[in-house]
Amino acid sequence: MSAQMSRIALARRPSGSPVPEDFKFVTDDIPTPAEGEVVIEVTHLSLDPYMRGRMDDVKSYAPSVDIDGTMTGQGVGRVLASKASGFAPGDMVTGMTGWASHACLPGQELRKLDPAMPPSTALGVLGMPGLTGWVGLHKFGRPKAGETLVVGAATGPVGSMVGQLAKSLGLRTVAIAGGAEKCKLATETFGFDAAIDHRAHDDARSLRAALAEAAPDGVDIYWENVGGKVLEAVLPLMNTHGRIPVCGMIAWYGGANIEDTNQLPGLWRSVLVKRLHVSGFIIFDHWDEYPAFLKDVAPKVAAGDIAYIEDVADGLENMPDAFIAMLKGGNVGKQIVKL
Amino acid sequence: MSAQMSRIALARRPSGSPVPEDFKFVTDDIPTPAEGEVVIEVTHLSLDPYMRGRMDDVKSYAPSVDIDGTMTGQGVGRVLASKASGFAPGDMVTGMTGWASHACLPGQELRKLDPAMPPSTALGVLGMPGLTGWVGLHKFGRPKAGETLVVGAATGPVGSMVGQLAKSLGLRTVAIAGGAEKCKLATETFGFDAAIDHRAHDDARSLRAALAEAAPDGVDIYWENVGGKVLEAVLPLMNTHGRIPVCGMIAWYGGANIEDTNQLPGLWRSVLVKRLHVSGFIIFDHWDEYPAFLKDVAPKVAAGDIAYIEDVADGLENMPDAFIAMLKGGNVGKQIVKL
Repeated sequence: MSAQMSRIALARRPSGSPVPEDFKFVTDDIPTPAEGEVVIEVTHLSLDPYMRGRMDDVKSYAPSVDIDGTMTGQGVGRVLASKASGFAPGDMVTGMTGWASHACLPGQELRKLDPAMPPSTALGVLGMPGLTGWVGLHKFGRPKAGETLVVGAATGPVGSMVGQLAKSLGLRTVAIAGGAEKCKLATETFGFDAAIDHRAHDDARSLRAALAEAAPDGVDIYWENVGGKVLEAVLPLMNTHGRIPVCGMIAWYGGANIEDTNQLPGLWRSVLVKRLHVSGFIIFDHWDEYPAFLKDVAPKVAAGDIAYIEDVADGLENMPDAFIAMLKGGNVGKQIVKL
Repeated sequence: MSAQMSRIALARRPSGSPVPEDFKFVTDDIPTPAEGEVVIEVTHLSLDPYMRGRMDDVKSYAPSVDIDGTMTGQGVGRVLASKASGFAPGDMVTGMTGWASHACLPGQELRKLDPAMPPSTALGVLGMPGLTGWVGLHKFGRPKAGETLVVGAATGPVGSMVGQLAKSLGLRTVAIAGGAEKCKLATETFGFDAAIDHRAHDDARSLRAALAEAAPDGVDIYWENVGGKVLEAVLPLMNTHGRIPVCGMIAWYGGANIEDTNQLPGLWRSVLVKRLHVSGFIIFDHWDEYPAFLKDVAPKVAAGDIAYIEDVADGLENMPDAFIAMLKGGNVGKQIVKL
């Protein structure tokens, strides 16, 4: 009898916010590697907001997860068996393992980790979220010293990278985060000039007044992670020639609150009158920048000049709950699951 | 007693679509030029959709027209008297004369016309609308041969420039226009590959089906002149990495039809998933491109390679009616008023 592995599969498509019943725990045999493949024992898994999109059966930039298919995701782990050149048992690697205790992947889809850094950093500050912040800020935010940046979900792994990079480039940085603890983190750990607790504001108007105070010269770059009330609050504060990199919209992933008055004409008017540049981007188009990113950012992380925070849950079986909580903002920092 | 001039002033701010009572006809003395100034007898005036925005008292890229102030606008005319070097009586010039029979302007705000071209072309195909199409297509549309362009208000002076330039660059060009006559013009005079009559479609879904047929490879550039139903129809047809230069939104200038379901989350999702680039722009930021534009486009217009159509109304007193009709799509081609 073969050794066993576990994985989390999609049981059904969620309607709005995911619930535990949308997932199921499955046990399988550990695969045997074919020529060119590597079998990995996963040690850390990443949870990211984009995974919510993969659960829907709609046309998107990446295929949906099939019903009964393993949930998509990046993991880090130890090579158990290798039929790929360049990989030997014991090597620490990262790749798209899915939500699983073990994975069998082609060697060319894996990357060996820098042994000088903790393995989990490959999923956060030095992984996809860190790259997202770095690429998006430089390519689509086009920051200039003296400007003002506003970031939603500012203590998350993308937002905190964006804020720290912008601060080091001489911008005024304003964080929007959920709750007093995250606001404290934003200013004390991530060096934001100001932080606003969106939970302390019932509506966009009240949030906007707080933002106007924190950004007295207006907003030149709004880093869009959130959508919803935050977008509505920021838009009228945008300066002429402002940039909005659109990286996510966690407030709208569940499809909630879209029945109110049509806000599109107002956005369109702002785009025209203020000559805004709105750029959607998906990090999967920009992996070729990964070496340049690592070269720039890894030394800063190693030196402690770029801070990061991880929120570590324990055990594969707890991934659905950790994911559901993350989508509601329940985590603090990059959400990792340790197996 | 001084010689008299006439002008059209803003009588009150419109609520929604302008009506004749929002304007008034005023008689004044013709001004005497001060040092550096030129007095012009206006022969042709331009009517443009942007003027609707100037009638509102809201913060915009340009000041509102004051109550009792002359309506803003560009005109062409003959120099009557000059105290500015370089201008002599009889010279044909263009500048921001306002809706008036005469204007007194600083010499440095006037431009002499090319005597080889009809004076009215300085208001249309070789003026602000032509420059708008030329700058916006190149800078924000970033056209590539083989792509598909969709233009709203396609027989207008901006849309027809955009379509003809894109066609000459090897794009498939699809016009959206109001009525069978304009659709015929779009394909026969302006060389669009296909034209769709938006009036033949009651809702965005029906318009979208027609567009999908006319743009079988999807839409790479949507030139936004219109907003409303057209935007709603086009958005789901946009290709990955598509561009949307936002140049106007005539459907929303009156503020109408914004009470329906919030379409912003849907737009935002498209921007992200399709990595769209939405760029608002205002031609007044790009006047420095005017010489390059003239150098490229004037010979093509003179040679008949770029077609243009003018819709000429008669008499200053008829400007409000012509403007109101234009906002409803009642004109065909560039709306000019001949005095």
